Amino acid sequence: MQNLNTYFFTLFKWIVLLLLTGIAAGTLSALFLESLNWVTDYREAHKWLIYLLPLGGLIIGLAYHYKGVSVVRGNNLVFDTVHNPKDVIPFRMVPLVLAGTLVTHLFGGSAGREGTALQMSAAAADQLHKPFKLTSEERTILLKAGLSAGFASVFGTPLAGAIFGIEVLLINKFPYKAVVPAVIAAYLAAYVTGLWGVGHTHYHIDVVPKVSFMGLGSSTLAGVLFGIAAILFVRTTEQVSGLAKKIKYPPLRPVVGGILILVLVLLLDTHKYIGLGIPVILDAFTVPAAPQDFMIKILLTAITLGMGFKGGEVTPLFFIGAVLGSALAAVLPLPVGLLAGMGFVAVFAGAAKTPLACMVMGAELFGISGCLYITVACIVAYFISGKHSIYNAPENKAPGHFLFNFKLNK
Amino acid sequence: MQNLNTYFFTLFKWIVLLLLTGIAAGTLSALFLESLNWVTDYREAHKWLIYLLPLGGLIIGLAYHYKGVSVVRGNNLVFDTVHNPKDVIPFRMVPLVLAGTLVTHLFGGSAGREGTALQMSAAAADQLHKPFKLTSEERTILLKAGLSAGFASVFGTPLAGAIFGIEVLLINKFPYKAVVPAVIAAYLAAYVTGLWGVGHTHYHIDVVPKVSFMGLGSSTLAGVLFGIAAILFVRTTEQVSGLAKKIKYPPLRPVVGGILILVLVLLLDTHKYIGLGIPVILDAFTVPAAPQDFMIKILLTAITLGMGFKGGEVTPLFFIGAVLGSALAAVLPLPVGLLAGMGFVAVFAGAAKTPLACMVMGAELFGISGCLYITVACIVAYFISGKHSIYNAPENKAPGHFLFNFKLNK
Repeated sequence: MQNLNTYFFTLFKWIVLLLLTGIAAGTLSALFLESLNWVTDYREAHKWLIYLLPLGGLIIGLAYHYKGVSVVRGNNLVFDTVHNPKDVIPFRMVPLVLAGTLVTHLFGGSAGREGTALQMSAAAADQLHKPFKLTSEERTILLKAGLSAGFASVFGTPLAGAIFGIEVLLINKFPYKAVVPAVIAAYLAAYVTGLWGVGHTHYHIDVVPKVSFMGLGSSTLAGVLFGIAAILFVRTTEQVSGLAKKIKYPPLRPVVGGILILVLVLLLDTHKYIGLGIPVILDAFTVPAAPQDFMIKILLTAITLGMGFKGGEVTPLFFIGAVLGSALAAVLPLPVGLLAGMGFVAVFAGAAKTPLACMVMGAELFGISGCLYITVACIVAYFISGKHSIYNAPENKAPGHFLFNFKLNK
Repeated sequence: MQNLNTYFFTLFKWIVLLLLTGIAAGTLSALFLESLNWVTDYREAHKWLIYLLPLGGLIIGLAYHYKGVSVVRGNNLVFDTVHNPKDVIPFRMVPLVLAGTLVTHLFGGSAGREGTALQMSAAAADQLHKPFKLTSEERTILLKAGLSAGFASVFGTPLAGAIFGIEVLLINKFPYKAVVPAVIAAYLAAYVTGLWGVGHTHYHIDVVPKVSFMGLGSSTLAGVLFGIAAILFVRTTEQVSGLAKKIKYPPLRPVVGGILILVLVLLLDTHKYIGLGIPVILDAFTVPAAPQDFMIKILLTAITLGMGFKGGEVTPLFFIGAVLGSALAAVLPLPVGLLAGMGFVAVFAGAAKTPLACMVMGAELFGISGCLYITVACIVAYFISGKHSIYNAPENKAPGHFLFNFKLNK
């Protein structure tokens, strides 16, 4: 009960923190972009302003020399604060960098805008750390969120912004050495498969509605259910594997599994749940599936794999997600194709603990247009499914976190 | 000289390793997908096969019990091997998991295919580690490339495959806690900026040619040049900052900078290189830019920022990359819009050390269709630019690697 209170308190605190950060960053970026447009138009209409550039330089130089020594390091101060949280980033960073950038552009310096947006939103976010009594770890996370928000709002590319805020600080921690070989091998292998004349199933999402709070709320709810489906899949497969071990002679296990599946298939009187089930997945994109479909598929797959048959978990996870999403079209205000596509990748994201790969897979399979919905579904499913993973090698154990609870799992 | 030989030897070794891995994975996936289709069609034409599922189970059970105990852990064995490289993954994993999966699908088990593809390509890749005398680190990287290649070829989603092969092993090492706050803050901030009625520039890539070796070779070459442009930008800005420090009274630095820029603008007799330069960026997508444009922009931006004016580096980096890419259309067989888009994000990827964010930004700004070209350009630029970074806070220092040289920097 205490834990539950702490959990809801933490969740509520983070909702407020992120609302404040997002609104501050979005508003500062809007103000900045508008004034930057104005300043740029004004300069282009008054070409002689370039002659005053040295004077503009003097204004900036004096301002930072007498009022801004503490914030002159700009982005690097923000990055150092993330790595080694010390003093609050002074709020004066915001007006100084805003005014400095506008003066630079008014008189014709050659500069950009992302540094300004990053500094404004990170500095704004960091003001929250004392009033909200954030721990160092929480503060670090909020600063990354602030960087992401600044980048996202100044360029209008939210997903790239989110990744930027994390990646720019990952230097030396991300296995970049593996990236080039992985990308080369991946593209080459996919190319070679194509050379052999083997194609892949094409899925199609027809309609992607405009982003709305209703739509995002629905995605979040769907993501919760996709995460629960991932848990059910992992747990059921583990249960079956555990029961299978009671059969002492291993070769008999898949025999018993085969009999169980046979009986279930005869009882259900349909072959739609066996094999890969691609036709059922395709149907799910156009016609709402039955609500029990995903559970039957979980059961049959858990018996198949848990009892020692071979094959992957992923296409069944696509099936489970697509039919669950498709069935949700009856109750959620989103198109059936989009919900099926969200489930397709999100249940997999939860069960394999690979939300980034699944977000990218969504873009590769269904196009970039539904990417916000897919991102929300994947990330929510990832967190809701917690430590449950289909890849349970000892060294690959997923962390046991659940949403943002920093303390519960310590 | 010795170093250069080692470097070319390592590069050549990796080209061969990745060619072998990609071809093996792609071919195994093609073989697997084709036989899986055949088996699935056959089962659907002969519904009675489900009655033999227990017999199929027995065959698989006996095969793994008498011949496959060493590989029965499947994916988990692969993951454990990446985390703790020990014995070579037995090659028998390949025929066993292939045959086991086909038998499972022939008789109507409910299973997937990605596990099979992952095991086949990782096991195939691991056979190379002894003949090529790989170090543990190199072996780990090759195994990740093998996982990526398997995933990419079985689903036809190469970028997701590459990310999957890395992400699935990143458990506990990736700051996932920051992902949700970053994504929420990013989308919220971008949404709020939109609410204020502020829009973003739209860029458009008209034509994306079909993937070819010529096209990818051109992307690689362009990526090298984008990486060099990133180095030039970082070095020139550092040089200017260094010179600026010789002016002892800081407020005078931007004054001198302003005079320099003014003189250059008067000499060049154009205002196109000052400010954000959005119109020039837009033009670069349709008309090839002049080859000197990128250098002039580097010089003017380096003076602007190095001398203490304010603003970001990123829009100038977009400018530099877009005009450089655009100018390359005169010599490389790729459309001008695509080259401009590649440069737009790739120079930034190199200078900010954020290839993933830039790849995603490319998809968000230009659509997913050019993503392979953009990925190649970003990654090559990232590696070519080595340790040079616009964010040079001490804790954020980029690693000094250059392509795959595992030993040179030790």
